[in-house]
Amino acid sequence: MRFLIFGAGALGSLFGGLLSQRHEVMLVGRRVHMEAIRRNGLKIGGRTNLVVHPTAQEDIAEVESLDVVVLTVKAYDTEGALEALKPFWRKAAFLSLQNGLGNEDLLAERADRVLGGVTNQGVTFVAPGEVYHAGIGDTYIGPYRGTGLEEAAELVEAFSMCGIPSELSEDIRGELWLKTLVNACINPLTGLLEVKNGHILQSTFLTDVVREIVDEGLQVAALQGLHLDREEVLEKVWSIAEATADNISSMLQDLEKGRRTEIDSINGAIVERGREGGVSCPINSLLTNLVKALEEASPAI
Amino acid sequence: MRFLIFGAGALGSLFGGLLSQRHEVMLVGRRVHMEAIRRNGLKIGGRTNLVVHPTAQEDIAEVESLDVVVLTVKAYDTEGALEALKPFWRKAAFLSLQNGLGNEDLLAERADRVLGGVTNQGVTFVAPGEVYHAGIGDTYIGPYRGTGLEEAAELVEAFSMCGIPSELSEDIRGELWLKTLVNACINPLTGLLEVKNGHILQSTFLTDVVREIVDEGLQVAALQGLHLDREEVLEKVWSIAEATADNISSMLQDLEKGRRTEIDSINGAIVERGREGGVSCPINSLLTNLVKALEEASPAI
Repeated sequence: MRFLIFGAGALGSLFGGLLSQRHEVMLVGRRVHMEAIRRNGLKIGGRTNLVVHPTAQEDIAEVESLDVVVLTVKAYDTEGALEALKPFWRKAAFLSLQNGLGNEDLLAERADRVLGGVTNQGVTFVAPGEVYHAGIGDTYIGPYRGTGLEEAAELVEAFSMCGIPSELSEDIRGELWLKTLVNACINPLTGLLEVKNGHILQSTFLTDVVREIVDEGLQVAALQGLHLDREEVLEKVWSIAEATADNISSMLQDLEKGRRTEIDSINGAIVERGREGGVSCPINSLLTNLVKALEEASPAI
Repeated sequence: MRFLIFGAGALGSLFGGLLSQRHEVMLVGRRVHMEAIRRNGLKIGGRTNLVVHPTAQEDIAEVESLDVVVLTVKAYDTEGALEALKPFWRKAAFLSLQNGLGNEDLLAERADRVLGGVTNQGVTFVAPGEVYHAGIGDTYIGPYRGTGLEEAAELVEAFSMCGIPSELSEDIRGELWLKTLVNACINPLTGLLEVKNGHILQSTFLTDVVREIVDEGLQVAALQGLHLDREEVLEKVWSIAEATADNISSMLQDLEKGRRTEIDSINGAIVERGREGGVSCPINSLLTNLVKALEEASPAI
């Protein structure tokens, strides 16, 4: 299959690099990273040990035909990415492996064939041309709009044979919500308190807050016809916080580096969808406001 | 008059030092600070420039008789202080100049004559024997329980003639709530985000949160029969944040130094009083939980 990985940072480079072992892959990402890959190949360390040579470009000008666009840009860049990808709206299948709610809906407004994806792979950016595969996690792929289980199964097969453990999901909306609820707990709390993921489990003050975040989220999910099991969601939060106890969450990393976070598409998206349906989400709203205030803050000390 | 200042840290030392110019004052505080005062006197710098020599002790063993106990311990130490002060429950008037809600009620459960106080003096601890008077602010004193306007007026007079600008308040409960609501906004937000007080005015995300904190607080105040004007409270928050724009709030100072904060008697007290009256305060509750989690956190980085 012919893949275009659009937004090849840490995650996109891992997927694109692994896929390039058996498929035709073009990465599109930042110039300095792409230049390094063109020069020396893409180095993947950690749980994977590999140097591969996918095509790497700064834009899609040279792409003629392809089967699948894998979108791995930050959620706040989805609309811009879609404009750049307009030539493929009618021609390729679009798979999002992004964080938060709303990416697949934006895709489905433009592209004909959309698949939803959720991945628990852990990967960090080391330096231009190099990423670190910190933890192996499952990836779920399912039809979202204009696609069916067969098309999703083909992708699962393509991913799996390249060493990306993948599963077909008949309920990818549920998976997207589940991951978003986990992120809605771990990301803002670790970002605001500047603690590692595992700290959430060590404070009864925080486990109380986690339950409140989840309870609001479940009410909003129910508005959208999704009835997730509360205990299952909480169990997922605890198990992910434990499995990633020593990790610094993506939101804390973003805040430390003075970068914009994905809070709008995580807690902010829960608040927004709640508001549309008349469900108030004060806890998620406050966390969103605090993180957004932190994005624009300069430290006192 | 004969004053005992119990908990003579920064604020208590300022008040005791100024009062000692014309009154008999005994400071009770931490050993190292008291020893320095016994050795070299109490040095007050900043807006006041003074070296005074009040009596300074580690406990009340040598106190025989006095007129007024001024309580300036942290709110979470009020109960312990009251036990130590048992010999004076029937004999002296008790004035609290502490932060938060509930101190005067604790006093009134034990002592016969209780006055409420609110001060906007700004003072920081420099070193043993030395405090810095950062900003001159008004002090309000009013009868709370077992006391009347005359007794409060005598104290106002005693304070004023020592250079402590003071006013008689006929509604000290309202003043206490007003100051607590201001603290409930400025303290946790600056503490969590690690920003100076003025930053609150620069972020629309935070001004939104301030309104939510105040709205919950006003509902709880109303439960207790206090009807504060919303615009007046908000105006007070903005003006104090502006007047103290470059200050590092006491809560941020406490968190930076790994000390316990007064969150329980500020936002926590609002939540608790709300719960007793069936009013839910999710915003103040979340802020309380986050600050308490931060008190026990060790930084990730």
